[in-house]
Amino acid sequence: MRFSLSAALAALLFTLAATASATAPPNEDGYDLWLRYRPLDKSAQASVQAQARSIVLPGAATPTTQAALDELQKGLGGLLGRAPAPATRIADGALLLATPARLPELNSNASPLRAELAALGNEGYLLRQTRVQGYNVTLIAANSDIGLLYGTYAWLRDIGTGAKLEASSAPTLQLRLLNHWDNLNRTVERGYSGQSIWDWWALPDIKDQRYTDYARANASLGINGTVLNNVNSKPEVLTAPFIAKAAAIADVLRPYGIKVYLSARWSTPLELKETSTADPLSPEVQAWWKRKADEIYKTIPDFGGFVVKANSEGQPGPQDYHRTHADGANMLAAALAPHKGIVMWRAFVYAPKGTHIGEDRAKQGFDEFKPLDGQFAPNVLVQVKNGAIDFQPREPFHPLFGALKTPVMMEFQITKEYLGFSTDMAYLGTMFEETLQADTMTAAGGRTVAKTLSGIAGVSNIGTDRNWAGSHFDQANWYAFGRMAWNQQAKAKDVAAEWAALTFGADQRVVAPIVKMMMESRETVVNYMTPLGLHHIMGTGHHHGPAPWVDNLERPDWNPVYYHRAGRDGIGFDRTAKGSNALAQYAPEFARQYSDPKTTPEQFLLWFHHLPWDYKMRSGRTLWAELLAHYDKGLADARSLHDQWVALKPLIDARRYTEEEQRLTRQMANALLWRDACIAYFQSVSGLPLPAGVKAPAHSLEYYKSLTFPYAPGHW
Amino acid sequence: MRFSLSAALAALLFTLAATASATAPPNEDGYDLWLRYRPLDKSAQASVQAQARSIVLPGAATPTTQAALDELQKGLGGLLGRAPAPATRIADGALLLATPARLPELNSNASPLRAELAALGNEGYLLRQTRVQGYNVTLIAANSDIGLLYGTYAWLRDIGTGAKLEASSAPTLQLRLLNHWDNLNRTVERGYSGQSIWDWWALPDIKDQRYTDYARANASLGINGTVLNNVNSKPEVLTAPFIAKAAAIADVLRPYGIKVYLSARWSTPLELKETSTADPLSPEVQAWWKRKADEIYKTIPDFGGFVVKANSEGQPGPQDYHRTHADGANMLAAALAPHKGIVMWRAFVYAPKGTHIGEDRAKQGFDEFKPLDGQFAPNVLVQVKNGAIDFQPREPFHPLFGALKTPVMMEFQITKEYLGFSTDMAYLGTMFEETLQADTMTAAGGRTVAKTLSGIAGVSNIGTDRNWAGSHFDQANWYAFGRMAWNQQAKAKDVAAEWAALTFGADQRVVAPIVKMMMESRETVVNYMTPLGLHHIMGTGHHHGPAPWVDNLERPDWNPVYYHRAGRDGIGFDRTAKGSNALAQYAPEFARQYSDPKTTPEQFLLWFHHLPWDYKMRSGRTLWAELLAHYDKGLADARSLHDQWVALKPLIDARRYTEEEQRLTRQMANALLWRDACIAYFQSVSGLPLPAGVKAPAHSLEYYKSLTFPYAPGHW
Repeated sequence: MRFSLSAALAALLFTLAATASATAPPNEDGYDLWLRYRPLDKSAQASVQAQARSIVLPGAATPTTQAALDELQKGLGGLLGRAPAPATRIADGALLLATPARLPELNSNASPLRAELAALGNEGYLLRQTRVQGYNVTLIAANSDIGLLYGTYAWLRDIGTGAKLEASSAPTLQLRLLNHWDNLNRTVERGYSGQSIWDWWALPDIKDQRYTDYARANASLGINGTVLNNVNSKPEVLTAPFIAKAAAIADVLRPYGIKVYLSARWSTPLELKETSTADPLSPEVQAWWKRKADEIYKTIPDFGGFVVKANSEGQPGPQDYHRTHADGANMLAAALAPHKGIVMWRAFVYAPKGTHIGEDRAKQGFDEFKPLDGQFAPNVLVQVKNGAIDFQPREPFHPLFGALKTPVMMEFQITKEYLGFSTDMAYLGTMFEETLQADTMTAAGGRTVAKTLSGIAGVSNIGTDRNWAGSHFDQANWYAFGRMAWNQQAKAKDVAAEWAALTFGADQRVVAPIVKMMMESRETVVNYMTPLGLHHIMGTGHHHGPAPWVDNLERPDWNPVYYHRAGRDGIGFDRTAKGSNALAQYAPEFARQYSDPKTTPEQFLLWFHHLPWDYKMRSGRTLWAELLAHYDKGLADARSLHDQWVALKPLIDARRYTEEEQRLTRQMANALLWRDACIAYFQSVSGLPLPAGVKAPAHSLEYYKSLTFPYAPGHW
Repeated sequence: MRFSLSAALAALLFTLAATASATAPPNEDGYDLWLRYRPLDKSAQASVQAQARSIVLPGAATPTTQAALDELQKGLGGLLGRAPAPATRIADGALLLATPARLPELNSNASPLRAELAALGNEGYLLRQTRVQGYNVTLIAANSDIGLLYGTYAWLRDIGTGAKLEASSAPTLQLRLLNHWDNLNRTVERGYSGQSIWDWWALPDIKDQRYTDYARANASLGINGTVLNNVNSKPEVLTAPFIAKAAAIADVLRPYGIKVYLSARWSTPLELKETSTADPLSPEVQAWWKRKADEIYKTIPDFGGFVVKANSEGQPGPQDYHRTHADGANMLAAALAPHKGIVMWRAFVYAPKGTHIGEDRAKQGFDEFKPLDGQFAPNVLVQVKNGAIDFQPREPFHPLFGALKTPVMMEFQITKEYLGFSTDMAYLGTMFEETLQADTMTAAGGRTVAKTLSGIAGVSNIGTDRNWAGSHFDQANWYAFGRMAWNQQAKAKDVAAEWAALTFGADQRVVAPIVKMMMESRETVVNYMTPLGLHHIMGTGHHHGPAPWVDNLERPDWNPVYYHRAGRDGIGFDRTAKGSNALAQYAPEFARQYSDPKTTPEQFLLWFHHLPWDYKMRSGRTLWAELLAHYDKGLADARSLHDQWVALKPLIDARRYTEEEQRLTRQMANALLWRDACIAYFQSVSGLPLPAGVKAPAHSLEYYKSLTFPYAPGHW
């Protein structure tokens, strides 16, 4: 015993020494995302321990409740040093996971929670300190096992952020999906975080541990569906070998409440040489899709359905057979309906090559889909990008929001195709909030975009990079999408604070400055790329860097000059009645307000108006001076982001500090490039001098035009 | 104090409980490779502690010795729980790192180590328990700092394997390189382990932690050079932005003794529109390459040089201008020579489209290069694949080994293009040993392939997969390549034992069975794919799975039927004087022995001979029966590999156990496919019945022919 005691003493002293010498937090590589479960301080541990002396799940564990129990073991094991034992009997201090089916008294007339629970629906949960069977317990209650899993993640999240541990929550939207633009060869279109996490070749035999961790991360946010493959789809994904591969993924995701969906290529049966046409009205084609749906559901009984990009950017579609989008969507919908599957039909269409050349591209989605409203089958949703062009750093909301009776899904882009890939910092929570809270003015008293939705999808930024998202801060965009998919009323700032605490520790010396950086970051990118409503002036193909001068692409509406319309006379796209009249697609009150530049928010000014360079801005500056000031502010703020991060160095682990510092350094260079190249170009067009204090670009316009970016990622 | 003691006691009891309840080792993901440094048991810890009470490096630390000190901190920190403090004065029990420059007495006439050290050259090292300045020390001695780093890794390796801690070692070959077939868009040709680890887009600003860990792993093996990009190269890699990116990698690798090389595309200056031709005799072209070399060395002062694939499989080369390979290599060599750079000119050439259609492809490399021998500049090496076809599961050594005065480099393929990608287990140490120890018979008394070499290169199997190599066992192939690049006399079995101990722990209950599996594994693959000297009968393009029936490709010598020549009359490629006479390219004694099927090793029988189906084998079986028996043995052994692994389950951590179990399951299916498809095909050709006991293929030949493998990896 003497030996044991001295060894124990040595261990203790060693522990104390280690604690004292630790100056910077230990290195992290970001793999654990916001589910890090690092040890709490002693007082917080004591408080959490008191709420979870044991873990009790009445009734038999299902795969979903087992996932909840596993997460508690992992979470409390990390937060407290060790997890409480699972127990079978309720006792004081128990953490109790219960549904009415598992604990019938929750459903008794006497239960104070009965009504509250009933209001939470299938996926909601409540967390409560309460008495059950005479014992003081922490209750995670829900109407279903998936609700218990969501509640478990919420409880662990609240511990991680130091939030109060009482809440109830239920999602507004039933469809909360990720869209992977992942190709079957594992490249990812517009992916900046490595390969596709789906290793199609290794599947179905070999199931990467990542699939489980992916499911955990998404379930922790309430994401309940995932489209595995690119909307630019291939026929092979609907062949038996690939269905088996998708089924293997579905098996891993199912306990976490996540359904698998696939992107279907319109011409699949024709390309597989199993039909002679892809005409949606052909009985042969209809029968093929019915058989295919039956085949899929035999392997994946809870398959979610299809997303379809048809007659868009070269993809085949029903218009190839002079049928409408509704004809196409309804044919697929009929095949899926017996299995309760859905069709998400994308409204991102603009005229195929050679047609509609004269029309404002921003109008074309509305023009095609509005007339079809009312013609879609009940299990079809129209999936609409947040804006009418293409995931630009800032766009006004798409005019289809609020304009359709057909159920509409929002499509956000989490991956930053136009906002600096995974090198530039841009927290998208602010963009999501801006769009969701935009007033469509389609109802008296206003109706936000959020209120027009029946579902929400985000184009994933997930890849095989160790940190999943390409950079640590890009994890926040996945997080924010998920949290706002669950609750469209969530505030970007609150979500940022939650994420920062979970990701870097709930220390206000870290959280507050990081939230400040995040909240500034997207506006910074807008300023150095496309201020004042400018859009689509990026490099061709790869979409990296500035190229406002490009005027020679095959279609006029692929050219940046088409969008900014800068000339001696001024700059901007006139979308009022004097111009393309895209404004007429919006609600009358909205159109009225935005028809006048003076009542148009300046952040959208050049989206809707073509104005002379000497147009007087609210600041008192001319438009020309204001434009320059925005570019300068973008650059200054990019430098400020870097400096703010450097100031945090002592509080961040060396690895993550360095990885982000290198990215913020790159971002400063990217901001400078955008600022200088855009000023050089717009000056060449406006012919105006730079006002005093505005620094001339470092190089000639010809220099910026000569830059190429071979092998830029995400562009296959 | 009462509280502290009870807390200490609690900690102790917790530790004991944890130890008692731990049945399986903790999960590992493979990222740490063979540098895991998991805690030793107590007695081993005590013994190591006694050898390293302090760490002493006389003189100032350089980046290279700092890397050694860092590795000791990391290594001993892991092995012992904590690393000894660095100290400035030699004392009893010190671990002393010294070169003669750092510790002049090593060089004194009185030093017993002086002669031994002098014999070790620039990169060698010795490990010795000895007395220095009157103290008992553990000495790591070398003539240079890189020798100290190699010695440090050797010392840590010896601890990890439980080997005796005294050794001296020096490499035979100065050039020990990895060749990355990594494209600038991060795809990897014939890569089965994720993307390229080189993130060209993020470079040079953003330097992944992986680059450092890559350098550590390679330095631990003595690899001292790396070609960053694919031999199918692109012109952009030699532009200023990419040179800057390569320089950033070189900066990370330099302290680890690893030089950076690039694959140069022959037509680079022409394609960049900076010259009007790529003719090697054009002064304009010569001047361009001289300028380019100067530019590279300005940024990367220790740049290694170029590898070139020219006039091979569609790549441009000097023959496009009616110049020879020597003309081309010498022109580049002249540009690099002032900087001490080298050219590695690949001999993997076979007739470009439309020419030499009639000639045995196995002869063409020799036919092109042998006549040029003696014409190459001194800083040119000819890089020769191990065999004359293309990295098949088994090939006889290439006839160029031993046939040239020009310095020759061996090119092995570590990535398993033809041996089951990263799903099938195949330890290549046995293949490396088989080739290196093959007797070229080019000198009296024999001369092994190893003795003919001036350098060695391995086509990397490294990617962004968490475990680097696609599977845990594929790490062993990187390891074996490195160890055998350092010492061509190393035995595959010893290397396997070393790797297994470092990777799974030095427990003979684990090491011995794993070594057994590894030693069987490549022969298993040979048996179920290409037994008895068969070759090149795999699927077109992706090289996955069996396709002996393919006979319709553009060139005859791309077709499997060209190689196996199976018909009613028999099977095999006659390379004797009666056939293509490829044997005449070998030394006379070798040619004599292999001209007679009776004196040809049966493993190469059908490589050199076309024989009737009823040819009598040494076993007494007919060739037909023997072929079937080999396929059956391959399948049985693949199943045995799986079963052997399953038996190890209690001793392997759950994660690595499962990941390999899934792969071995896949391998059984792959072995069955090969066995069944090949038997179905060869039976259709031989027209012979299956002997009793040989199971008929599960499907018809038509079924196997109908299989496709879309999106198989590694084929871009």
